[in-house]
Amino acid sequence: MGVKRLAVSIGIDLGGTNIKFGLVTADGKILSRLNIPTSAEEGPKSVVSRIIKTIRHLASSLSSSGEFVGTDSSVPARLKSCLQFSSQPHRVNKVKVKSIGIGSAGLVNHRQGIIHFSPNLPGWKNIPLKKWIEDEVKAKVFVGNDANAFALGEYCFGAGIGSSSLFGITLGTGIGGGIIFSGKLLLGINQVAGEVGHTSINAFGPKCRCGNYGCLERYAGAEYIVERAIKQLKSQTGKRKPQNSTMLKLSKYNYSNITPEIISLAAKKEDRLAKAIIKETGFYVGVGVANVVSLIDPEIIVIGGGVSGFGKLLLDSIKKTVSERIMNFSGRKLKIVLSKLKDDAAILGASQFEKFL
Amino acid sequence: MGVKRLAVSIGIDLGGTNIKFGLVTADGKILSRLNIPTSAEEGPKSVVSRIIKTIRHLASSLSSSGEFVGTDSSVPARLKSCLQFSSQPHRVNKVKVKSIGIGSAGLVNHRQGIIHFSPNLPGWKNIPLKKWIEDEVKAKVFVGNDANAFALGEYCFGAGIGSSSLFGITLGTGIGGGIIFSGKLLLGINQVAGEVGHTSINAFGPKCRCGNYGCLERYAGAEYIVERAIKQLKSQTGKRKPQNSTMLKLSKYNYSNITPEIISLAAKKEDRLAKAIIKETGFYVGVGVANVVSLIDPEIIVIGGGVSGFGKLLLDSIKKTVSERIMNFSGRKLKIVLSKLKDDAAILGASQFEKFL
Repeated sequence: MGVKRLAVSIGIDLGGTNIKFGLVTADGKILSRLNIPTSAEEGPKSVVSRIIKTIRHLASSLSSSGEFVGTDSSVPARLKSCLQFSSQPHRVNKVKVKSIGIGSAGLVNHRQGIIHFSPNLPGWKNIPLKKWIEDEVKAKVFVGNDANAFALGEYCFGAGIGSSSLFGITLGTGIGGGIIFSGKLLLGINQVAGEVGHTSINAFGPKCRCGNYGCLERYAGAEYIVERAIKQLKSQTGKRKPQNSTMLKLSKYNYSNITPEIISLAAKKEDRLAKAIIKETGFYVGVGVANVVSLIDPEIIVIGGGVSGFGKLLLDSIKKTVSERIMNFSGRKLKIVLSKLKDDAAILGASQFEKFL
Repeated sequence: MGVKRLAVSIGIDLGGTNIKFGLVTADGKILSRLNIPTSAEEGPKSVVSRIIKTIRHLASSLSSSGEFVGTDSSVPARLKSCLQFSSQPHRVNKVKVKSIGIGSAGLVNHRQGIIHFSPNLPGWKNIPLKKWIEDEVKAKVFVGNDANAFALGEYCFGAGIGSSSLFGITLGTGIGGGIIFSGKLLLGINQVAGEVGHTSINAFGPKCRCGNYGCLERYAGAEYIVERAIKQLKSQTGKRKPQNSTMLKLSKYNYSNITPEIISLAAKKEDRLAKAIIKETGFYVGVGVANVVSLIDPEIIVIGGGVSGFGKLLLDSIKKTVSERIMNFSGRKLKIVLSKLKDDAAILGASQFEKFL
């Protein structure tokens, strides 16, 4: 048989709390994973040095172990724009990391691989992440926006397989977006396209921290969802005993314990307010998504990020709002779905940056 | 010298009142023009038969006259994606119409050349315009949206020459948009991308005739601008003599005579209310354009359509609003300009449909 070689990529999801690493084959199998705490307070030099150490650890563990589960021998043709080779033997002896992709929140210069600024990484300013890592590791490094990584992941290996155009939207503390058209990532002249979170859904709405007014993020970002839940809980306290609220019970009667997860749990236990909060969130997201659909008419919208854990209740509300707000005509094509890859989407998408940036 | 041949296209701007025809060279010179009334009330068969007659008239006038002014011998390289040949002799003996492009408002199937419905053409439903004309005329026919024609015209021959991405927005009774990215028209899966007029700038705003709420068109479409002017004039009448209003004077003290043109004239004569109305219009358009910029980050935004006749006052207000509402960072690239080709943009853009549809 001789020596079998398998070229893999490392996909990295650079978050504010954790950095997730995945060793990914060209057809989207995650062979191994590592998580390290970000500890952004240590400063960029220290964080990047731990990233480099972890990359080395992943890469060396590979060549010493010698055997990995390869890919399925049959790869659908529709995956072709995401793949470099269509099949691999099931056992390989040599594994080579050919590229490293890093997805980060914030303002990223994709071409130069510089993180200008990131809400997740306080104090990081104009960090030449690509250069710092390439100076230490023998592989090409690509740095991109985390929402673009999410969109790419779903496009190549998830809910968007086979689609001609895709809009990925990540719902969390921040709301991001990534656009794929005709097999290409649409980056924009400043490489900041996709910022659906900072499109205004109400020109006269409250000010967003970005400076704009009535941004989608200002209505449907995690903290504003929680803020609305607390406000409405408080306004109900006068009317009925707060003990009746599953949401309050789950948060141990402490408003500051309320999170999107608590709201989600309460909704599953049929808490009326929790369900209303989720539906309202879906309405706001739906208004933003309807605008995206009117502007770029994508084949599929994929909803991800922590807040997408609200699940079907959220999705149904988004779908209803979009369908009420776009121009409908017979035969109009549009799919709106939840993320298929969930937490893995950004790792998988980042691992494909080499082909899209 | 022998016989010189020049291949030209006919660009057609199919409006509700007039149909404008232009005989266009590949580098965007309009060799001759014809206008005919639309008379949409005669029904599609009759209108299309007059379009065919006019095409024949234009084409036959060409081959009999025998001599035309050709193009400039030096064509800038940056025009290359819009050009099929880079230079032409100044005198040619044979002219051949190789394609016909038609831009129409409304819902158009670009691939099949069908007008599903057009607000300009009451009663037109699923008209196979391409087929009807190709059955009678020896040239390929391409049917597209008028805002796409506008955007293409400006991209190929106007304000957007040399840009990598462009968003064209037409302000009139309706508000439309066209997107060009990496030298391609972004049509969308249903070929209805660019509908900036029906993006919501206020989720809780008034209902638009499209069914959505708070659409940009519902705030900045010509009739709503006029409606706002009349409302504010009426509310002022109690405070000061209406004779003091230049706007009212120009409209012969008859509210129903007020049009965007009257508002524009009054503003030029320093009428305060007229100027305020124009600035307010710029604010609404600016909110919509800021959303476009956040989403697709184009290199240049070109503002056209009748209402863009408001000129610098409108443009400055749009620019101010956009700059206040997008994420600014040092070195951010964005140009916002008024149409360079004005009334010719749609004819010129439609003449290029062959290369972009």
